[in-house]
Amino acid sequence: MALIVQKYGGTSVGSPDRIKNLARRVARFKALGHQVVVVVSAMSGETNRLIGLAREIMQEPDPRELDVMVATGEQVTIGLTAMALMELGLKAKSYTGSQVRIVTDDAHTKARIMYIDEERIRKDLNDGYVVVVAGFQGVDEKGNITTLGRGGSDTTGVALATALKADECQIYTDVDGVYTTDPRLVPEARRLKSITFEEMLELASQGSKVLQIRSVEFAGKYKVKLRVLSSFEEDGEGTLITFEDPENKDSNMEQPIISGIAFNRDEAKIMVLGVPDKPGIAYQILGPIADAKIDVDMIIQNMGADGTTDFTFTVHKNEMFKALGILNQVQAHIGAREVRGDDKIAKVSVVGVGMRSHVGIASQMFRTLAEEGINIQMISTSEIKIAVVIDEKYMELAVRVLHKAFELEEA
Amino acid sequence: MALIVQKYGGTSVGSPDRIKNLARRVARFKALGHQVVVVVSAMSGETNRLIGLAREIMQEPDPRELDVMVATGEQVTIGLTAMALMELGLKAKSYTGSQVRIVTDDAHTKARIMYIDEERIRKDLNDGYVVVVAGFQGVDEKGNITTLGRGGSDTTGVALATALKADECQIYTDVDGVYTTDPRLVPEARRLKSITFEEMLELASQGSKVLQIRSVEFAGKYKVKLRVLSSFEEDGEGTLITFEDPENKDSNMEQPIISGIAFNRDEAKIMVLGVPDKPGIAYQILGPIADAKIDVDMIIQNMGADGTTDFTFTVHKNEMFKALGILNQVQAHIGAREVRGDDKIAKVSVVGVGMRSHVGIASQMFRTLAEEGINIQMISTSEIKIAVVIDEKYMELAVRVLHKAFELEEA
Repeated sequence: MALIVQKYGGTSVGSPDRIKNLARRVARFKALGHQVVVVVSAMSGETNRLIGLAREIMQEPDPRELDVMVATGEQVTIGLTAMALMELGLKAKSYTGSQVRIVTDDAHTKARIMYIDEERIRKDLNDGYVVVVAGFQGVDEKGNITTLGRGGSDTTGVALATALKADECQIYTDVDGVYTTDPRLVPEARRLKSITFEEMLELASQGSKVLQIRSVEFAGKYKVKLRVLSSFEEDGEGTLITFEDPENKDSNMEQPIISGIAFNRDEAKIMVLGVPDKPGIAYQILGPIADAKIDVDMIIQNMGADGTTDFTFTVHKNEMFKALGILNQVQAHIGAREVRGDDKIAKVSVVGVGMRSHVGIASQMFRTLAEEGINIQMISTSEIKIAVVIDEKYMELAVRVLHKAFELEEA
Repeated sequence: MALIVQKYGGTSVGSPDRIKNLARRVARFKALGHQVVVVVSAMSGETNRLIGLAREIMQEPDPRELDVMVATGEQVTIGLTAMALMELGLKAKSYTGSQVRIVTDDAHTKARIMYIDEERIRKDLNDGYVVVVAGFQGVDEKGNITTLGRGGSDTTGVALATALKADECQIYTDVDGVYTTDPRLVPEARRLKSITFEEMLELASQGSKVLQIRSVEFAGKYKVKLRVLSSFEEDGEGTLITFEDPENKDSNMEQPIISGIAFNRDEAKIMVLGVPDKPGIAYQILGPIADAKIDVDMIIQNMGADGTTDFTFTVHKNEMFKALGILNQVQAHIGAREVRGDDKIAKVSVVGVGMRSHVGIASQMFRTLAEEGINIQMISTSEIKIAVVIDEKYMELAVRVLHKAFELEEA
């Protein structure tokens, strides 16, 4: 007998029929003797409908009141889900985030979970209930309704699995696992049976939008066994997210060298050229950017021959003009020759825990791109990832040739 | 400075524009220096939409889970209302029934309010906030979400007014007050500036569907000053519901003799004829009816000359055949000659506190109906009401001639 937390996203609860389908899956797990906690999102489209309604009243909806409204989306789904389970003869009970008590800080619309009172759920589980919990929402210590921000239902699932010491947290979504790359781009892409937490983190943050990053971080922190599955397949085994033992990095000899290729065309590149090379220059450039709450991803600095340096970084495309405006104001002060932006770029990353113990991955990547005549504009590396920025128009080609070069289509 | 509780029904919050309109009215009251608590229903149609969704999953939705779902209707409205108030520069804060804590018993879908923690609201009012509360819902002592049943938002308004010792509870609806009778039937019908609680109760239970009866009873019990107003009129004064001092029944000399004419075509008449006249017969007839949970309204028994008696009572039209079925089973046992039903009837009542101190109201009523050739089938009286059952087809005529005979069109 295991305790399993299953999280279903908006598409998986998008209609009464899909909710009935979900209930049948839960019933199969119950029939095997497992205890099941179900975390559900709002029915697809509902959150946007509620935000739209709020905007008809207030252009920038008040965060506290928006949370009050938006939290109703999951509240409807938990009631429907509990009823669907009862229709199958199961004992079921629903809880809002506030009822569980999933206690968060008071940062409305993007709250963080502080702790969970799991007592009530544990008692219900022991009494034979399937417990249905509203994802994405909580309550602050003063009793105000909060939400965790978009995608927060994943975080709710992982946090509940942590609090309940669940054997597994299953994230049901519309894909059947994590792939070596996006199958829409590379038909040969292969589902990974398992992937390490760190690789998952890189793949997710690089644009493989399977799981919300925060939930993966959370799972990693608390060593929750996390599995991504399809809610439209009956018997898929999905992709298991594993956590390496930090004491023994090479524990898994079977680990493939490269797990996948991630890509992202949401970034823009900003170049600050011909800056006098002196201490503090990075701060003078990035300080005002951080003050404006613009997130920066890659940062690269190259010394020139003439005592000046070129400073390049990437931001989200939507924020390029804002960032350029800020830099134009400080350009004279920092003595830069030129400030330039380019939003016709894409980032492509090769991700794999195995590359730590294998040399030559970077050179293989660069050679593969060179053979296709793809110019590399920026390079950034971590222990388990090599990311390059290239011209946007070569992105699909780059992903395909890298997928092939690292033989990812083979099991 | 007064403390006013304003309750707005589903039509009054039916669209973002109407909510903005509501906010403007509240702002006018705030500008006069009043403290305002706003109680809102779900947007019109929303509760039915949610119940429909539940029925797609479960034909007889589980009451606890239905409450979880249905309570979201008002939760959306409170958020929107608070935002609309903020847009006008007011400080506003919303609370669900559970957040207030409006504590009810655990009778899901028809819970009764036990007590209200009014501390939090009082503090917010003193801090200058308009407090927006979800009507129709509460929480039981175990933290389960409950609803008060249809129309329960009125009850929430009155209960909050009681707990806060408010100066007035204003019920905004789509009519501008209580009329001498339904203006759709009698164009000369006149809005009453005030009406006693007892008259209101008779008018409401007799079919003038302005206020939910439970809320009026509640207001009467706690002597809350209750006013019915139109949410579509800017400066109406509506109808004030007053409470007589029981020690001084004739305190108000100005009180008109008759306040209004109520009518109801939802009842059916059941006649049990030729029953041997012996003790216990009423119980033998009505006992099985009560056991079947059929509500009985009027009951009349007439002794015949031959030692038998005719027993007549009224039930809701929808339950006539069920009641007849039950009586057919016991007919032999009680020795009745015949059991017969008639659902082509209507009840018309003349209501007025003043009739207690004026003789001749009944005879004037009967004469008026006789002059029109309307036969009276049953008569039932209370201290402030005379009700007659007549052929359904004469209902409109009866209401019109009685309205004229008692000079109700005059101020």
